[in-house]
Amino acid sequence: MSKRILVIGGVAGGASAAARARRIDESAEIIMFERGPNVSFSNCALPFHLSGIVEKSEDLVLMCPEKFKSQYNIEARVNSEVTKIKREDKKIVVKNLETGEEYEESYDKLVLSPGANPIRPRSIEGINGSNVFTVRNVVDIKKLNDYIVNNNIEDIAVVGGGFIGVEVAENLRLAGKNVSLIEAQDQIMAPFDYDMAQILHKEMMDKGINLILSDGVQKINKDSVELQSGKRVDAKTVIMAIGVSPETSLAKDADLEIGETGGIKVDHNYLTSDKDIYAVGDAIEVYNRLTHKKSRLALAGPAQRQARAAADHMYNIPHRNNGVIGSSVVQVFDLGAASTGLNEKAAKAAGISYDFVYLIPGDKVGLMPESNPMHFKLIYEYPTGKILGAQAIGKGNVDKRVDVIATLILMGGTLEDLKELELCYAPLFGTAKDVVNHAALVALNILNGQFRQVPVTKVRELVEDNAFIIDVREKDEYEEGHLKNAVNIPLSEFRNRLDEIPKDIPVYLHCRSSQRSYNALMALQNMGYDNLYNISGSYLGICCYEYFQDQVTEREKIVTEYNFD
Amino acid sequence: MSKRILVIGGVAGGASAAARARRIDESAEIIMFERGPNVSFSNCALPFHLSGIVEKSEDLVLMCPEKFKSQYNIEARVNSEVTKIKREDKKIVVKNLETGEEYEESYDKLVLSPGANPIRPRSIEGINGSNVFTVRNVVDIKKLNDYIVNNNIEDIAVVGGGFIGVEVAENLRLAGKNVSLIEAQDQIMAPFDYDMAQILHKEMMDKGINLILSDGVQKINKDSVELQSGKRVDAKTVIMAIGVSPETSLAKDADLEIGETGGIKVDHNYLTSDKDIYAVGDAIEVYNRLTHKKSRLALAGPAQRQARAAADHMYNIPHRNNGVIGSSVVQVFDLGAASTGLNEKAAKAAGISYDFVYLIPGDKVGLMPESNPMHFKLIYEYPTGKILGAQAIGKGNVDKRVDVIATLILMGGTLEDLKELELCYAPLFGTAKDVVNHAALVALNILNGQFRQVPVTKVRELVEDNAFIIDVREKDEYEEGHLKNAVNIPLSEFRNRLDEIPKDIPVYLHCRSSQRSYNALMALQNMGYDNLYNISGSYLGICCYEYFQDQVTEREKIVTEYNFD
Repeated sequence: MSKRILVIGGVAGGASAAARARRIDESAEIIMFERGPNVSFSNCALPFHLSGIVEKSEDLVLMCPEKFKSQYNIEARVNSEVTKIKREDKKIVVKNLETGEEYEESYDKLVLSPGANPIRPRSIEGINGSNVFTVRNVVDIKKLNDYIVNNNIEDIAVVGGGFIGVEVAENLRLAGKNVSLIEAQDQIMAPFDYDMAQILHKEMMDKGINLILSDGVQKINKDSVELQSGKRVDAKTVIMAIGVSPETSLAKDADLEIGETGGIKVDHNYLTSDKDIYAVGDAIEVYNRLTHKKSRLALAGPAQRQARAAADHMYNIPHRNNGVIGSSVVQVFDLGAASTGLNEKAAKAAGISYDFVYLIPGDKVGLMPESNPMHFKLIYEYPTGKILGAQAIGKGNVDKRVDVIATLILMGGTLEDLKELELCYAPLFGTAKDVVNHAALVALNILNGQFRQVPVTKVRELVEDNAFIIDVREKDEYEEGHLKNAVNIPLSEFRNRLDEIPKDIPVYLHCRSSQRSYNALMALQNMGYDNLYNISGSYLGICCYEYFQDQVTEREKIVTEYNFD
Repeated sequence: MSKRILVIGGVAGGASAAARARRIDESAEIIMFERGPNVSFSNCALPFHLSGIVEKSEDLVLMCPEKFKSQYNIEARVNSEVTKIKREDKKIVVKNLETGEEYEESYDKLVLSPGANPIRPRSIEGINGSNVFTVRNVVDIKKLNDYIVNNNIEDIAVVGGGFIGVEVAENLRLAGKNVSLIEAQDQIMAPFDYDMAQILHKEMMDKGINLILSDGVQKINKDSVELQSGKRVDAKTVIMAIGVSPETSLAKDADLEIGETGGIKVDHNYLTSDKDIYAVGDAIEVYNRLTHKKSRLALAGPAQRQARAAADHMYNIPHRNNGVIGSSVVQVFDLGAASTGLNEKAAKAAGISYDFVYLIPGDKVGLMPESNPMHFKLIYEYPTGKILGAQAIGKGNVDKRVDVIATLILMGGTLEDLKELELCYAPLFGTAKDVVNHAALVALNILNGQFRQVPVTKVRELVEDNAFIIDVREKDEYEEGHLKNAVNIPLSEFRNRLDEIPKDIPVYLHCRSSQRSYNALMALQNMGYDNLYNISGSYLGICCYEYFQDQVTEREKIVTEYNFD
């Protein structure tokens, strides 16, 4: 008896489940139902149509129903909305959106991969205006792009600073538009901590995005957006990208269990509370292996993995379910920004004891073309040294560094493991002691009590409190820009100027990127100084952290000149 | 009592040991002796001076003795050759190469980091000519570059196709020179297997390098090189880069134990057979954690790690010694080429039971600019699935993929782990199922007996034996170039053309990159065909493998047209 497998949703999760089932079982009857006109399109590439990087919206569609049929013998029915699951009969009700006709199909196994819906809060006046868009599929992005082109729209507001909001804003800016990005939180890109997000804020501003934080949309007019602060932003088109909610209406209607986070509840095998119905992708609740808590995760990689596991389970093929850690990367103009695992916020929220290091080493040998500083933050469990997460931002290969950390996390690695990693090196690709090795060395020093550090987030307070701060860079570097009340005692001179360094109060040290100040600190400590702190991130980090806030507030600067590389 | 630490050799290993010792112990007296005029230069960046990527040879020097003194309180004595170690007195004899003066210095701890010498075989006539160069330090590269510039040299021969030979050849070619690269083996770049090396051969030829394999140098004349084959190559300058031999003369003279591979023998702590003398870097014998055999490894990363461990051991700071796996990367014109762990040759030589997969997925989402195929070969232990090594070649981010594999190897990971890795994804950075995940999936299928494969190296034999080969690409792709006797049955048609596919003889399938042929194979297998083989690497791989050999021999082509992307 051949199996009849129905799949609801024809994008990442759905198409993967169908294709995997076909490879396992040539005789199965496999039908995929998709509400929209396209199956198997590249969701993640949608925003790139707005800049023309993906010129034609049709190119976003990777497989047509005809190809699914001829190549995989999978029937893909588009414009077909599944309106009901009749679990007792093992049937679904399908509505043909072109003809209005409704019909039933029976299944042996059903896979739900309905995805998630962009949130459009009804509380915002004007939210249903014809100038308000969301981005979920090829139809959406084409509609948005056509609207902008046909109406010669120049002023656009993007609401929400997550992946989609940032990518939409960037691609519109690349297309030459005046773009405002409005975010209700005090930072964009939640996978990053507040300190790291400042670097992205700076990049957005430098590239001409009108970035508005800690403010929400109250009303959308024809040619402006009114914010909760009372501000008004010129915008003839508004894209809502404040988040998505899992599409669970079918599941709820069929009395499938919903998890505590609002996603469809699934077991180890991605089975719902019905033993013949699987659910995968953005609509489900996943298990975070680091926090040991339920969460949701709208990423393509995990969706594909879940889909494969579900198909495998139909055929009794065992698989692992490791939970998720959440690895992602995004391009923000000239910068890549990658993250994996827990950030500080998440570790704190989960009640996990952690510490972190923030360093800004070069991403390649300094002599090489396009060598740049890389901002790297590593979070680890205290006192075990188990790696919990990383964030990397820079012009260079951020995804490489974060993928290495993701691999270590999945293998249960510690700082000791990270220190010992033997990675590829050539001057064009990195440094002999790679960014990640470097981070482990610094973190181990802290873990072992070799020295103490203060984060860049505390520097303003130190300056205001008139703390004793030594800048150990050379004089010419100091003169190009420095912390307002830092004393310049270069690394090359400090051994002869010990009388200037007090022993009875805390002394804070920094240089450009923390390497020289670390050497100075170790030397002083060995000489009997015992109240020393290295400023993690050093001058580069301080500038990046302070810059954006200085731009948007009236407060006094704590540096004489910014320096970013 | 403060320690007196002497360090012989002032580059990667020596400088790292000295700096680490200083950070641990401010009171130690630390002196570094370097025969040449420079300490702490970037060896790995030397070749880049030839193309002008590093414009001034002085820039290759990272730290001068004055800076070592002022910043680290380390004395660096250049032009100072250590001529003898008097172990019984714990003294060394130093010769000042500028004055000729000899003197002694006593030590508590001695670190040997003498490096390795480029090999100049005396058997080659003319090897000592003024037109013959080697590349080891800043003086060498400046001398070579000045010679080429001052004499308007156009025709240059580089002998040896390892890292230095390839980088020197490339940088000279970038400077517009006529470059011949002569290699005695049948391939360049030993970390790569023969099949993978073909891609590098093609790139070298495409970029105008006169590549000569399986031939050696017999005689060097003023304006030509005579080869063992009788061939003559125009060259007014010759660079010898056939390998290095560890500099062990001092150690031998002092009766320190030398290992079976010719490197200085060291223990877990990088101590030589003398408990007060450490040795690190290119001169020592290391332990390969995968083959469990002694070997040598001339790489900067391990040298720095060993140096740190040696310094730590002087102060009873524990460290790990994981042995080495050997991770490296090199730029070959437009291609990056990275490798880690064992290749097939090494696994075979070590008697390790292994299998491998070779696949050529896209390095990014196809829609994105600069998306390119990546050649990826994964070696794993059979039947355990333990990851042993990887090689990646392509325009994209090869080091990222290989660093992930290196991390897995160091953590003892298996194919199952690799399959489950949750890596960063965005269309500009990769694909939702990354190259490395993809490799694990294919390998697991093979490990689990889901299908069998033949490598591209066997395809010529199949063609000559008139084997039944099906090309499942679409008709238009087939017409642009195909295997000479392959039958074209597109994936979209094969279910209707089963009568053309024999059941009684082996059937070999391929497409462009193996993905479609894998789907066809699984379907056929599920229909009862049981003598099927997927051609690993498929048409892209076949073309890359055959191309170079077709260029240099007279034999008949087995493809109608090459296709490389």
